[in-house]
Amino acid sequence: MRTKDIAEALAGRLDGDGAIEIDRLVHPARAERPSDLALAISADAVAALAHSKAQAVVVSADHPVPSGSFRAVITTNEARLAFARLTALFDHGPALEKGIHPTAVVASDAKLGVGVSIGAYSVVGPRSRIGAGTAIMPQVTIGADVTIGTQGVFHTGVRIGDRSAIGDRVIVHPNAVIGSDGFSFAPDLMSTAAFTADVVLTRVHSLGNVAIGDDVEIGACTTIDRATLESTRIGSGTKIDNHVHIGHNVTIGESCIVCGMVGISGSVTIGDRVRLGGGVGIGDHLRIGDQAVVAAGSGVAGNVPAGAFVSGYPAQPHQRALEQFVYASRQKRLHEKVEGLAMRLGALELTNKK
Amino acid sequence: MRTKDIAEALAGRLDGDGAIEIDRLVHPARAERPSDLALAISADAVAALAHSKAQAVVVSADHPVPSGSFRAVITTNEARLAFARLTALFDHGPALEKGIHPTAVVASDAKLGVGVSIGAYSVVGPRSRIGAGTAIMPQVTIGADVTIGTQGVFHTGVRIGDRSAIGDRVIVHPNAVIGSDGFSFAPDLMSTAAFTADVVLTRVHSLGNVAIGDDVEIGACTTIDRATLESTRIGSGTKIDNHVHIGHNVTIGESCIVCGMVGISGSVTIGDRVRLGGGVGIGDHLRIGDQAVVAAGSGVAGNVPAGAFVSGYPAQPHQRALEQFVYASRQKRLHEKVEGLAMRLGALELTNKK
Amino acid sequence: MRTKDIAEALAGRLDGDGAIEIDRLVHPARAERPSDLALAISADAVAALAHSKAQAVVVSADHPVPSGSFRAVITTNEARLAFARLTALFDHGPALEKGIHPTAVVASDAKLGVGVSIGAYSVVGPRSRIGAGTAIMPQVTIGADVTIGTQGVFHTGVRIGDRSAIGDRVIVHPNAVIGSDGFSFAPDLMSTAAFTADVVLTRVHSLGNVAIGDDVEIGACTTIDRATLESTRIGSGTKIDNHVHIGHNVTIGESCIVCGMVGISGSVTIGDRVRLGGGVGIGDHLRIGDQAVVAAGSGVAGNVPAGAFVSGYPAQPHQRALEQFVYASRQKRLHEKVEGLAMRLGALELTNKK
Repeated sequence: MRTKDIAEALAGRLDGDGAIEIDRLVHPARAERPSDLALAISADAVAALAHSKAQAVVVSADHPVPSGSFRAVITTNEARLAFARLTALFDHGPALEKGIHPTAVVASDAKLGVGVSIGAYSVVGPRSRIGAGTAIMPQVTIGADVTIGTQGVFHTGVRIGDRSAIGDRVIVHPNAVIGSDGFSFAPDLMSTAAFTADVVLTRVHSLGNVAIGDDVEIGACTTIDRATLESTRIGSGTKIDNHVHIGHNVTIGESCIVCGMVGISGSVTIGDRVRLGGGVGIGDHLRIGDQAVVAAGSGVAGNVPAGAFVSGYPAQPHQRALEQFVYASRQKRLHEKVEGLAMRLGALELTNKK
Repeated sequence: MRTKDIAEALAGRLDGDGAIEIDRLVHPARAERPSDLALAISADAVAALAHSKAQAVVVSADHPVPSGSFRAVITTNEARLAFARLTALFDHGPALEKGIHPTAVVASDAKLGVGVSIGAYSVVGPRSRIGAGTAIMPQVTIGADVTIGTQGVFHTGVRIGDRSAIGDRVIVHPNAVIGSDGFSFAPDLMSTAAFTADVVLTRVHSLGNVAIGDDVEIGACTTIDRATLESTRIGSGTKIDNHVHIGHNVTIGESCIVCGMVGISGSVTIGDRVRLGGGVGIGDHLRIGDQAVVAAGSGVAGNVPAGAFVSGYPAQPHQRALEQFVYASRQKRLHEKVEGLAMRLGALELTNKK
Repeated sequence: MRTKDIAEALAGRLDGDGAIEIDRLVHPARAERPSDLALAISADAVAALAHSKAQAVVVSADHPVPSGSFRAVITTNEARLAFARLTALFDHGPALEKGIHPTAVVASDAKLGVGVSIGAYSVVGPRSRIGAGTAIMPQVTIGADVTIGTQGVFHTGVRIGDRSAIGDRVIVHPNAVIGSDGFSFAPDLMSTAAFTADVVLTRVHSLGNVAIGDDVEIGACTTIDRATLESTRIGSGTKIDNHVHIGHNVTIGESCIVCGMVGISGSVTIGDRVRLGGGVGIGDHLRIGDQAVVAAGSGVAGNVPAGAFVSGYPAQPHQRALEQFVYASRQKRLHEKVEGLAMRLGALELTNKK
């Protein structure tokens, strides 16, 4: 790729030499070869430009460099988006040979689209269908009656349970599990009634599936349980990080962000464009409205209205949580003040008695 | 299955046609075929019956339907239990061909019971024994000297460490790990002594195993570390959800519920019929008494007596935790009140001086 | 091994018979054979010695036993370290046949050192190099351009992403994932700007790698994301427990302890000899200084200075967190006291008016 091509791909402005062949994207401090493109869209990286050996750089319109400082300067108005696009340009993807590896075990009635690749030792179950261009890395297992869309990537060790329905361009990271059984028993697990000595836990089987939209990303070691009768649903465009637990019968809307180690209990309903910070827990059957934000580490014990920003354990409106935190830090002073008032009051009472 | 058979299996009362052939269990709103059985044991589902196309329904005695509303009505007194049994009737289990897949690598001195199935690419180590009727799905690894009981199901990607001893009818979900090494070093990890610049962490090796009773269920991506010298123990009937971490030397009693993302540190002892909500953390060497309940998201930093209900971080009796939460929400008012008292007291003092 | 050899290996003092053949390490209560060595370095285990059938014992100099109580007594001054070394003496390691299993798929241009073992169905990608004596258990996948040092152990189901660089004597437990993609998008995930209806989440690809030093241990189901441009780094001697999530661009120093279920967000920098208790969460871009300790269950929302001990959510100096906890438990009393003062003050005001 030449600097000219990159400027075009980013819809950025090019100043200087458009013919430099670029083969690597680096921090300005790491630039060492003419073919390195230094990325300087953060203030920190811009500062590093002063001592950089880079010949070609990408900068933000917010942090311009003097004209002529480098052989080629690409300036972008949307720095974060340009950054994302640049990384896509330089990602060659995982190393997977084209075609079906001879050791893959594919059911005779499974259907594979044009250009599907399946890695060593992967297993595709009966009646499952995989869309054109999707890459199944080595040691993936896909159950029975699964449908997977086009242009997806399923990394090593991914487990897809029976009947899962997965859209186009879905990326699933290593050792994630989609379509495992829900955790549901009779009697109800967290019912207020005590578990007496004769309790027997009878399994509620999971007859439903997991349904995932398009352009969804699912992190490493994340698990999504299938529904009891219907579908656990993940809307299109939603991105899920590592170690996330999504219980049975959950519905998550479109373009949501679910950060690492979030736990979503059974039958929770989450709207569109919701953001859940790392380590958030959500109690069962709750509803989180569109565009709500839950701060990292919060425990949600009640419904969250659309657009709300909540934090804490139990989660409450963030301003209220902050206020309580501030008051908690003033306790010592408050106790001392009350003690002082009590002494002054006692003195007054004594005076009055006389 | 006919409606008559289902009513019998649930020990329920049948009104109407007992000869309807049923092949699917659905929410009342989803019923569309004569062979659909609509399940209406929750108030919500009962409400949906009004507009349902269902011909056969299962209802709770608590939510009866008028006689003659449907071709067949099965009424049950124990709704949740009937629900669990119904789902079992309609679960055909994972798709696994009978027998030992030709690609499975089974040690020559391993012993397999009658009717054991082993999926593609699974590996069974030396001297291990698997009981009659147990299903090992594809890509499972079973170490050396492992014993597994009868009628179990080991889903794809499950890892069973050396010397594990597992009972009958145990279900292990995808990518769970049983019998990994404990996390233990010299010096002690969380000792109060500082780690000085010359610290060297020396490994304590895990020579023990994991011992699991009958009818235990272990969730996807859950890990259970083996003991240092003896056994990490999980009692019969205990159900463990996804992403649970059970440290070395832990003992969990019978018929416990361990919800998703619970972390149990090393050498913790948990009684029978204990329930741990999602995301609970338990500090090392603690004891949790029989039938105790720990609310979701709590951090347990001390022993919990039998029958107690605790919550919070650090966990305390739930009523006390609630009380503190209520007081925390009244801080602003309290500060204002104290401020008001201080002003009134100042005024009185001024008056008195005159 | 004879008692004499064991005493030497522990640099301990031997009293009695040095020729007893030992083949098992046990708790004193479990000793039953002459070849059992009873380990009694904790007070609890020492107490059990009174009724033990052990003939050979290891004791701490802090808990000596009367001379002549056993056929052989090994006394150690550094009990915890001796314990660690003893367990190493009796660990025969996982059962893995020497050499490359015929079913392993190793790229033709991968390079394997002397004595490397690779288990059934493991896959090694193009241009990857594995150092002498390293054991790859069954069903491990190693990507392209990976380097792994000598004498390591990679347990079943481990996934190593492209370009990972791993040192000597590294142990990775089952189903851990090293080098998965970072969780990064444009626009920024937790930016304060609302996600409006037209939001499109554009992926930031992970072009960097994970770099791991020597003598590192990584727990079961732990995930370490690779960096965007450079390296996510784990320093030599650092030990990481199960279910830990380490985000992209994170740097962890040397000889750190990271307990189970810790979540470290992107671009966090952690010093040397830092200890993070179970379930700790750390917000993105934060810095944790050398030898800091974060108590279990804490949520870190700001930088932590070197040597600090913090706890709570949000984490603060432990003494302050404890103080606030104590004050929180006195709220009821404080409210009552303020109420009492208000009544007394009212009475005084009334008196004064007259």
